[in-house]
Amino acid sequence: MNNMEKAVALIKELETLKPNIYGKDFLLTWENSVDNLKAVMLVAEILQLLHKEKQPWRIFDYGLAISIFRDNSTRTRFSFASAVNGLGLGLSELDEVKSQIAHGETVRETANMISFLTEVIGIRDDMYPGEGHTYMQEVADAVEEGFQNGLLAQRPTLVNLQCDLDHPTQSLSDLLKLKDYFGGWDQLKGKKIAMSWAYSPSYGKPLSVPQGVINLMTRFGMDVVLAHPEGYDLQPDTLVSADKFAKESGGSFRKTHSMADAFKDADVVYPKSWAPMAVMQQRTKLLQGGDKQGLKDLEQHCLAENAKHMDWECTEEMMKLTKDGNALYEHCLPADISGISCKQGEVAKSVFERYRLHTYQEAGYKPFVIASMIFNSKIQAVAYKLKSFI
Amino acid sequence: MNNMEKAVALIKELETLKPNIYGKDFLLTWENSVDNLKAVMLVAEILQLLHKEKQPWRIFDYGLAISIFRDNSTRTRFSFASAVNGLGLGLSELDEVKSQIAHGETVRETANMISFLTEVIGIRDDMYPGEGHTYMQEVADAVEEGFQNGLLAQRPTLVNLQCDLDHPTQSLSDLLKLKDYFGGWDQLKGKKIAMSWAYSPSYGKPLSVPQGVINLMTRFGMDVVLAHPEGYDLQPDTLVSADKFAKESGGSFRKTHSMADAFKDADVVYPKSWAPMAVMQQRTKLLQGGDKQGLKDLEQHCLAENAKHMDWECTEEMMKLTKDGNALYEHCLPADISGISCKQGEVAKSVFERYRLHTYQEAGYKPFVIASMIFNSKIQAVAYKLKSFI
Amino acid sequence: MNNMEKAVALIKELETLKPNIYGKDFLLTWENSVDNLKAVMLVAEILQLLHKEKQPWRIFDYGLAISIFRDNSTRTRFSFASAVNGLGLGLSELDEVKSQIAHGETVRETANMISFLTEVIGIRDDMYPGEGHTYMQEVADAVEEGFQNGLLAQRPTLVNLQCDLDHPTQSLSDLLKLKDYFGGWDQLKGKKIAMSWAYSPSYGKPLSVPQGVINLMTRFGMDVVLAHPEGYDLQPDTLVSADKFAKESGGSFRKTHSMADAFKDADVVYPKSWAPMAVMQQRTKLLQGGDKQGLKDLEQHCLAENAKHMDWECTEEMMKLTKDGNALYEHCLPADISGISCKQGEVAKSVFERYRLHTYQEAGYKPFVIASMIFNSKIQAVAYKLKSFI
Repeated sequence: MNNMEKAVALIKELETLKPNIYGKDFLLTWENSVDNLKAVMLVAEILQLLHKEKQPWRIFDYGLAISIFRDNSTRTRFSFASAVNGLGLGLSELDEVKSQIAHGETVRETANMISFLTEVIGIRDDMYPGEGHTYMQEVADAVEEGFQNGLLAQRPTLVNLQCDLDHPTQSLSDLLKLKDYFGGWDQLKGKKIAMSWAYSPSYGKPLSVPQGVINLMTRFGMDVVLAHPEGYDLQPDTLVSADKFAKESGGSFRKTHSMADAFKDADVVYPKSWAPMAVMQQRTKLLQGGDKQGLKDLEQHCLAENAKHMDWECTEEMMKLTKDGNALYEHCLPADISGISCKQGEVAKSVFERYRLHTYQEAGYKPFVIASMIFNSKIQAVAYKLKSFI
Repeated sequence: MNNMEKAVALIKELETLKPNIYGKDFLLTWENSVDNLKAVMLVAEILQLLHKEKQPWRIFDYGLAISIFRDNSTRTRFSFASAVNGLGLGLSELDEVKSQIAHGETVRETANMISFLTEVIGIRDDMYPGEGHTYMQEVADAVEEGFQNGLLAQRPTLVNLQCDLDHPTQSLSDLLKLKDYFGGWDQLKGKKIAMSWAYSPSYGKPLSVPQGVINLMTRFGMDVVLAHPEGYDLQPDTLVSADKFAKESGGSFRKTHSMADAFKDADVVYPKSWAPMAVMQQRTKLLQGGDKQGLKDLEQHCLAENAKHMDWECTEEMMKLTKDGNALYEHCLPADISGISCKQGEVAKSVFERYRLHTYQEAGYKPFVIASMIFNSKIQAVAYKLKSFI
Repeated sequence: MNNMEKAVALIKELETLKPNIYGKDFLLTWENSVDNLKAVMLVAEILQLLHKEKQPWRIFDYGLAISIFRDNSTRTRFSFASAVNGLGLGLSELDEVKSQIAHGETVRETANMISFLTEVIGIRDDMYPGEGHTYMQEVADAVEEGFQNGLLAQRPTLVNLQCDLDHPTQSLSDLLKLKDYFGGWDQLKGKKIAMSWAYSPSYGKPLSVPQGVINLMTRFGMDVVLAHPEGYDLQPDTLVSADKFAKESGGSFRKTHSMADAFKDADVVYPKSWAPMAVMQQRTKLLQGGDKQGLKDLEQHCLAENAKHMDWECTEEMMKLTKDGNALYEHCLPADISGISCKQGEVAKSVFERYRLHTYQEAGYKPFVIASMIFNSKIQAVAYKLKSFI
């Protein structure tokens, strides 16, 4: 099948689903039905195929897409820029002082003030537990009020570009890579994925990636094992929901404190560092209180704590434990690569190099996942519209 | 009437005017005839109606719009971004060190260097009395020379996004809100508007909003009362012109040092803080001289001076003085709201909340006012072109 | 001939050439054949003529252009923004910490991560000898690998917006000005151009402009004289190649330590300051080592050294030495103008003012040169495509 034939086949598959995304924001995968998730992924694949053939997939005549990044970003920033460009929107970035957590009246007013011609608002706010998702909801409520009162001619769609809870554009890209690698969603049933903490010399990495992965892969029948040293807990709710999803899909979910245990016979490994939940909460308080010495002390304490777990590295030895010694390595990038980006980090140089192009391909889905979330929210007859591009 | 029928009616009204804006910059409302002002407002309303119906109103195939912000801005920045996006231009922002006041050769050269494919230059430069408008004129002269000498294939249109004298995109939005609220320009004759100073815990707010309002509303037959404590004078010229405009239009203009006097029986109130003219001039000198201690002292002095007038607040009691206790509250946003954005400020929380959506609607005209200024400057047969969109 | 007739004639001339630019990056003029250079210049002239007639020359339906500026820039930044806007691309800027020189894995990964929908990457990296061109090659290698492995659907074209070796968008603009001024490339044979160092109170200016000029003008049969005080040497290789080019084209190339000698009977003068090669290398080491005191000392030493050569100024007296006292003055802008931008600098106020509009016209080619480089790299049947615009 050539690319256009593949696109036609995917549109047919899309037509068998009953998604409910039209007019909705995309904030958390676990608020969405499996059909919603499949629709987002299928449309992403179709847009990527159209892009490979340089078939335009513009759906807007004009309008703005606004990105709000409350944390540094290169990959997600350019993914968002790419997605909205392809859809026909102009991009404007709203700069905010990074550590400032605006709430209430300011959010309500600003959200409307920037939205008179705005179709999409993409937000990354992943630094503070309890903050990012709440902020996105506040923005959503604000533009909903503006739209309902006729102040905005359109309801800007919110896209979560990473919050404190979930990183849906990443986890759906991770899943699309798995779909491609193993040959379909059906092939994921019973496959084991090790979502494992890994050592990093840095500090304060967000929890949204592991939380997102364990709550998405469990919905597709995978055997998900979450591994981390004691104390590096995720938000408790996210474990409860992952467990529920596993039961529903016929997959499984369990936690372990051994990386080797998680890697044993795994089909996929996702070794990645994060900060303990409790530390992130403490850090938020210190940041809010402007306690510089406290922040310094906390950082020292955390780095020292991390250093006790330097053996949590995705080495060649660790990889040998996996299924046929040949598990797929996933990462959201950038990885802390031992001997390259740091002295010792999340992954051995040789392991990373072997899977490097796979990780690039994984990342390559992201612009299309973002575009798809917008597409599905804005277009009522998605399959019909897609056919018009072919 | 539906939106398209409304647009058709407004185009008919537009055809009765004799504006003279084609090929012109838009720097000050008082340089423009009433027909020019009406044309700008009518086209803004028409573009807004087209936008509500998602009818594109693009007039450029390609080209740049450049914004130069010499003061922080969110609302105006996004209004400009929205306007030029709708018209079909790409946006580029020229960052300058904020406190730097470039003149002469540098302005002449830079203005041309950035304009080879540029259709519009929007400038906000409101911090220094005697500077902002002068700077805009220098840029205009520079690109005029470049155009006349064939160096530029098109003459970029300058749009004043706020200068030391006027804030025309704001005041025309304020006026459009009044037109909508009271049911037409005719209905404004004899209506009383209180443009009043109000207390704010901040310092150094520009004078362009009150100057703009008293010089615009007086042209439409309104009874304009300017109120401020002694010493908080505006630029003297702007009072002379407001007086002249009032006489011409059959309205009136007077000054008072009592907020209550201004609010008495007012149909509209516009309570907003600003710094005294003399202070702004002193501040400019200190900034130019890099006198940090002087600036600190001036700020202390001003805040202390402001604090003497904390009773200049738009409270519920003050609102009761207005016509039927029911005047429309206007503000350019963001307002200093007592108990929300500050301990005590320009307006009581309950008053602001009651008029909040009105202020959002007021702000919502701005993208279309900016677009209209460009539209009227670039398109010779405005009504004809607008009809082509319907 | 009107503009469209001129464009048609230039397309005919283009059809006589055998360029080899399709699918290529544009990094150095000296990697390119004379036919390549002529093709870039002819297409630039044609696009400029189309622009004068407001005939769109869009070649992309969508896609991103990314600029990476590792040095401040206004002119080149807006030239790039203009070029890619005209071609139909959205612009995204990649900010990097300016002094940071990223290499290896980071470059390889980042280049791909930002390129999933990217058609063009423009880079300015001119501060460090041995760095800028190398960096551009690394980026080129990275996206080539991504494209070859199917990770990128298109191969982003790299455009050198100034590196440590060459500044091709500038030198080709300089040459287009000469072509226009003297009436054709043929008219340049035997014309003398003085590429001369000039005094400036600033420090650390890059060498790419003089290196670019001596290596481009020698290819068109000009008599190129490079003048500078002892010690202000360029990169040795660039003199060897300039000499070779002069021999091939029937022009000439020589070096002198006297500005007057270079100006004598010159048809064109290009007086411009630069830092000595050795100083730039030393500066790079100090910057990399974070040696602030060393940098301070080096700056003091250099400014003192510069000050010994304050007589290297393009004065009226110096201009009298040129052919009929009437040589064309060229500059890449901004010039250090005595009595305007500094007390004493590269050029006398009266000389600059006489040629000011000429320098603006020179700069005015740059957006079209950049657009042409992209056009020639992306479009296989260039003349055919251009005809479709007419």
